[in-house]
Amino acid sequence: MSKLIQVNGFAIFSPVHLSPGLWRHPDDRSLDFSTLDYWTDVAKILEAGKFDSIFIADGIGIHDVYAGTADAALNTGAQIPKLDPMLLVSAMAHVTEHLGLGVTAPVSYEPPFTLARRFSTLDHLSKGRIAWNIVTGYSNTASRAVGRDSIMAHDPRYDLADEFLDAVYALWEGSWDDEAVVVDPIRGVIADPSRIRKVHHHGAHFKIDAIHLVHPSLQRTPFLFQAGASNRGKDFAARHAEAVFLGEHSKAPTAANVAETRARARAFGRDGRDIRFYALLTVIVGETHAEAEAKYRDYQRYIDPKGSLALLSGWTGIDLSRYSLDDPFPTVKKDNAVTSMIDSFSRSERPWTIREIIEHNGIGGRGPVIVGSPTEVADQLQAWVAETDIDGFNLSYAVTPGGYQDFAELVVPELQRRGVYKTGYAKGTLREKIFGPGQARLPSSHPAARFRHHAAVEPQREPTSA
Amino acid sequence: MSKLIQVNGFAIFSPVHLSPGLWRHPDDRSLDFSTLDYWTDVAKILEAGKFDSIFIADGIGIHDVYAGTADAALNTGAQIPKLDPMLLVSAMAHVTEHLGLGVTAPVSYEPPFTLARRFSTLDHLSKGRIAWNIVTGYSNTASRAVGRDSIMAHDPRYDLADEFLDAVYALWEGSWDDEAVVVDPIRGVIADPSRIRKVHHHGAHFKIDAIHLVHPSLQRTPFLFQAGASNRGKDFAARHAEAVFLGEHSKAPTAANVAETRARARAFGRDGRDIRFYALLTVIVGETHAEAEAKYRDYQRYIDPKGSLALLSGWTGIDLSRYSLDDPFPTVKKDNAVTSMIDSFSRSERPWTIREIIEHNGIGGRGPVIVGSPTEVADQLQAWVAETDIDGFNLSYAVTPGGYQDFAELVVPELQRRGVYKTGYAKGTLREKIFGPGQARLPSSHPAARFRHHAAVEPQREPTSA
Repeated sequence: MSKLIQVNGFAIFSPVHLSPGLWRHPDDRSLDFSTLDYWTDVAKILEAGKFDSIFIADGIGIHDVYAGTADAALNTGAQIPKLDPMLLVSAMAHVTEHLGLGVTAPVSYEPPFTLARRFSTLDHLSKGRIAWNIVTGYSNTASRAVGRDSIMAHDPRYDLADEFLDAVYALWEGSWDDEAVVVDPIRGVIADPSRIRKVHHHGAHFKIDAIHLVHPSLQRTPFLFQAGASNRGKDFAARHAEAVFLGEHSKAPTAANVAETRARARAFGRDGRDIRFYALLTVIVGETHAEAEAKYRDYQRYIDPKGSLALLSGWTGIDLSRYSLDDPFPTVKKDNAVTSMIDSFSRSERPWTIREIIEHNGIGGRGPVIVGSPTEVADQLQAWVAETDIDGFNLSYAVTPGGYQDFAELVVPELQRRGVYKTGYAKGTLREKIFGPGQARLPSSHPAARFRHHAAVEPQREPTSA
Repeated sequence: MSKLIQVNGFAIFSPVHLSPGLWRHPDDRSLDFSTLDYWTDVAKILEAGKFDSIFIADGIGIHDVYAGTADAALNTGAQIPKLDPMLLVSAMAHVTEHLGLGVTAPVSYEPPFTLARRFSTLDHLSKGRIAWNIVTGYSNTASRAVGRDSIMAHDPRYDLADEFLDAVYALWEGSWDDEAVVVDPIRGVIADPSRIRKVHHHGAHFKIDAIHLVHPSLQRTPFLFQAGASNRGKDFAARHAEAVFLGEHSKAPTAANVAETRARARAFGRDGRDIRFYALLTVIVGETHAEAEAKYRDYQRYIDPKGSLALLSGWTGIDLSRYSLDDPFPTVKKDNAVTSMIDSFSRSERPWTIREIIEHNGIGGRGPVIVGSPTEVADQLQAWVAETDIDGFNLSYAVTPGGYQDFAELVVPELQRRGVYKTGYAKGTLREKIFGPGQARLPSSHPAARFRHHAAVEPQREPTSA
């Protein structure tokens, strides 16, 4: 059997994600972003299309590099306002049965104890469908919002993140045995305290002496997403992630990234196949090639250059207000999550101008845009998978929820005909749906596993994570 | 027209709230507490009964005073496991249209910036129905869970809470003008940066230099609940609260508390009527008095003394494992949220024994239990309102959701016949439903109002809260 192509719906709790200006398109519902009806509709559309999950981006920073202010971002709604995606989960879980629910949350602004509790709560409420996209926070704006003068340096930030994860793993995996929940009405017992242990985590950044407040959920540790693209970020992903989201613009760097991260994972004692890779992608599909092309040209008329400049300046750290639109896109410092897009343009016969990059990336951000009929799109998706070793796609949109709906109604049936897309959801938790039956919990090769309590070995030891 | 009696459904995201052991009753669904179906059913039952709101208690501490461990609490499920109630809101909001959604959140463990964002998110998603029960955190257990060696002293904790509120008020009320959101597709403008300002809060405990991430919601500041019973807590409530939840056992201390807090509110320049008071109460109602009494006796058979001891020890700070059940209930130190219950028992002809207190409080915790026919219950509710000047009740249960449902089906129609209970919900936000049309935002006498931006007065000033 061919490898099945997996798909996540990529979203943000904001009026603009990666296609600034498209909120003005008559088919677009972006301005409904702060309503529950919008999000429950999106969830139902994704589940009807048998998407594996929704993945909601987040971050408390705002894009204020362009002209040194947030004015352009505010003006164009470029990822601001931005609301807390974790609070959408219970409504989406209530209207779906299978869709994985991935939300972004930082390790930077609240104690591991309360974050662990939030995800355990959501894993219970969703019956094991929650995924956590781990972010370390990247902007000075974000730091100033929470009382710090500037952001922590990059590598120490990942050290802190590693410690944060050890702390939450200890809470999720080590505090309550599966046998701790008893529920015996005759004896009047709900839980067995001898199977519940305090976590003692005394690290450089965090300290915990407490039992986890939540009994074991189906997945215990949420399904772990990560999107780090720096060297240290790749190490972090190789160590912890079960799914990695890539934002490369083309196949070659995607393939290199996949191979490298799988190799790093093996170096950490994991199976390279224990990580799924999803490439950022926007698909514009029509019944025919001509229809898709017409749709794309129509969407392009709504691109908002100012919003694009706000996003591009924010992502690259370069204040593009200092350049003319016809200047070549300026050089970006290395080891940055977004350089590869610019790199790939620079590698073409001549450097792209800022205007060309906006025209090219005003829809779908830094990811590729595939335009075509269902068979053409399916061909390209299969080529991406074959040539890069990715497992699937992180699907963005020009218009929402139409972009998801078109994919579900036109591309999915074609992929199903080719035998490369599931025709129904597998049973069980998100982790079982992705990795197979019996895989509700993380495998023993994952770093979280060492926080599990092994009664036979050390009966009274309390889990210590640092 | 008589004053309408208001009712909140009192709940906790745990298998046991105030009636330990009742989870074993065949009519009880407490063990479904970690499912969305349970909470959406509760929300629908409360809305069918035209309850004003649900109020979900919370706190990250656990009851570990009894015998110096959490064993009794864990054994009996006495408020542990305990999940994060904020994460229930979107599902409950999705299945209701009018019910107020009150959740508890502390000012102790996360920055004002991210908490403000969460509540703004929920106010948008619920279309103006969110309420925040402000707590300062009360246990050493909780502090040790988040890396502090012990809890901050009581009064400084309220100083910190006052500062926290100033910070969130500045974000909610001062960062975005109502006119900031433009949404003009012709000009491609979503927001007007000149109507959006950074909040600069530089206080003793918190620091913020950022714009609020969320555009103004219908209520801006969530409807504010508080339950502080200490002197400092009463001052805090008098300054900030729009609804105060009381946990007295009888009318006299309730009346005294109401009068005192209204007077304190007036001293802060507010109208005493700007605060609503709700008395903790459990109602056991049947078609007839005999049926209600039989129901109560049946419920009492399920009381769990061990669970009650865990709760009573936790609330009073007295390790009751050191006493015999037939000892008089030991004296409790003053200025504690729960002493009044014990006081009221001590004021009877002889001191109550621990066993008697458990029999009396094993259902409904420290609040009174009213048992009777619909007319008997209605008589007593009206007497409570008349004699104490409260506005309504915070309704707990013996069994859930049956306790809410009995009240909705038997007591509410009787109160409606008497003209003291609404027959339909008012339009608008929770604040408008409680305080009347045009009151979606806090009144100008509330301390949050001073953070509003008055363009005519000081056009360029950024809101500074400390």
